[in-house]
Amino acid sequence: MNITILGGGGFLGRRIAATLAKHGKLGGKDVTRLTLFDIEHPPVPQAPFPVRTVAGDIVSLPADAIPEDTDVVFHLAAVVSAAAEADYDLGRRVNVRGTDAVIDACRALPRAPRVVFASSVASFSGGQDAVLPDEARQVPANSYGAQKAAAELMLADASRRGFLDAVSLRLPTVIVRPGRPNKAASSFVSAILREPLLGLPADLPVTEDFAVWVCSPRRATSWFLHAATLDTTPMGLDRSVNPPGMSVTVAHMLQALEEVRPGAAALVRRVQDPAIASIVGSWPAAFEPLRAKTLGFESHEPLVEVVRAFVQDDLEATRRERAGDPAS
Amino acid sequence: MNITILGGGGFLGRRIAATLAKHGKLGGKDVTRLTLFDIEHPPVPQAPFPVRTVAGDIVSLPADAIPEDTDVVFHLAAVVSAAAEADYDLGRRVNVRGTDAVIDACRALPRAPRVVFASSVASFSGGQDAVLPDEARQVPANSYGAQKAAAELMLADASRRGFLDAVSLRLPTVIVRPGRPNKAASSFVSAILREPLLGLPADLPVTEDFAVWVCSPRRATSWFLHAATLDTTPMGLDRSVNPPGMSVTVAHMLQALEEVRPGAAALVRRVQDPAIASIVGSWPAAFEPLRAKTLGFESHEPLVEVVRAFVQDDLEATRRERAGDPAS
Repeated sequence: MNITILGGGGFLGRRIAATLAKHGKLGGKDVTRLTLFDIEHPPVPQAPFPVRTVAGDIVSLPADAIPEDTDVVFHLAAVVSAAAEADYDLGRRVNVRGTDAVIDACRALPRAPRVVFASSVASFSGGQDAVLPDEARQVPANSYGAQKAAAELMLADASRRGFLDAVSLRLPTVIVRPGRPNKAASSFVSAILREPLLGLPADLPVTEDFAVWVCSPRRATSWFLHAATLDTTPMGLDRSVNPPGMSVTVAHMLQALEEVRPGAAALVRRVQDPAIASIVGSWPAAFEPLRAKTLGFESHEPLVEVVRAFVQDDLEATRRERAGDPAS
Repeated sequence: MNITILGGGGFLGRRIAATLAKHGKLGGKDVTRLTLFDIEHPPVPQAPFPVRTVAGDIVSLPADAIPEDTDVVFHLAAVVSAAAEADYDLGRRVNVRGTDAVIDACRALPRAPRVVFASSVASFSGGQDAVLPDEARQVPANSYGAQKAAAELMLADASRRGFLDAVSLRLPTVIVRPGRPNKAASSFVSAILREPLLGLPADLPVTEDFAVWVCSPRRATSWFLHAATLDTTPMGLDRSVNPPGMSVTVAHMLQALEEVRPGAAALVRRVQDPAIASIVGSWPAAFEPLRAKTLGFESHEPLVEVVRAFVQDDLEATRRERAGDPAS
């Protein structure tokens, strides 16, 4: 299996690379080469197969980013939601034109590769009362979501035409993200778990009954790998999947935090922020991901395991990063 | 009202221009200027207001195509379905990039104009058994439909951002189109009415119980004009409308033809074409356009009136055009 990860330097791109490196296989077959593409050369994991890195612009995608014998392309190169909202041109360029560039690169290959695309629940709206079935329409309330939904359409059409063979995963909000709190409206969802685990305070801008559709980095990674080799025949024209995340409230998250680190939830400060509450209030609180289950996507692990996995996988690295950073 | 029609030389663009010219008003206000843009300079209707024409490429839209004080843009510039299927690059360029160019031109204006966009039922699939509610997802079975659906997403997002104020109309198959039978899969839907009215034979590639969602050129024009001035506030994030077309079978069409021109239906030859039947078989047969009715879009006139209107509006011109054309 010859594999490319576009956005291979990002949070999930690195996880997918690390998992491939660890197992050396994908869908039961040996990985024979991995290409990691990003704006800057991504870190190279220690792997039982050759790993190349390519740096460049997704819109003028270098030919060696998706070599001729590529079997699977993980397409995670994106301008994320807060950035796409702040800079319309940049978001449209990377998230829409960038996906067109991926389509064009795949069209030029002698054999249509599988393309696993990172789409997002940000392409939906509906708010706290919404429990969205698989047939729900995407009515985005932000530019990132609109661009992702448009890219899904282009990838599904490219699949129908035989240029590539796409599976688009509409990822839930991923928790627990390492890194610092930032200006993204969703920042608090990870911060209220991560910061207290680091012994630091965190701001909660919504009420405790606020519900959000989430997944863990581990589960997101396992969904990407599953999507890379599943049989797409039963998907027909519709190449998009709402994977089986879970709907959790802030209260659930604080409870899980307390279970893993008693007393930590006291570090969460209630700081109402109507601007953030209004943005995140448009997100659907839950999905009914029946199609994903039929297609074999793994169900989600319990929330307390998600918190434990962060402690195990990321807490020390996050702490070290902050300690070594004079801005912290 | 300062108005621009992009695709002002096309079938529906010319109708909209002619209707504006005839009435001199839009939404009760005087039309003060009309700009007609197309690849070539469109014909200029006789009008009680100045009419300018601009020729060029929609993707590198000339600045004077949408002047600074524009109130309404009708965006009908497109590569149609058969052409977009035959030439992927051209369809994507004009139908997606072209719409982005329209968005960018509107963003540059001091005041966000209304943009009425010609989308299409080709953005849906579902087939003969489908009766699609307003909440139905667009799962396109052709590149044209995918590109139109993507353009709708970009226009809705641009509306949310305040760059423009869009209404996207997902037009049914328009009957009766003038012109000759062509290679478009939908060609027969108009041809089985038009050709017999011209005294010419026409091929019917499907069975008589084949159902299709249609509208007349008159009704399409009145919907465009309504969309140009309706209050978009109740539309919220969702700027797309399934207008109230009608579901008719081939048998209905032949019956209406017989009513208008007894004996004409005998000119329709049954010539089964599995390739065409397969393409048109993916189109949804009917919609439940409740939202459009709430938004004040006019209901459809009876089929027999549609056939009579063709005889009244277009038959002579079509006959003259063919007589003057040595290829006929």
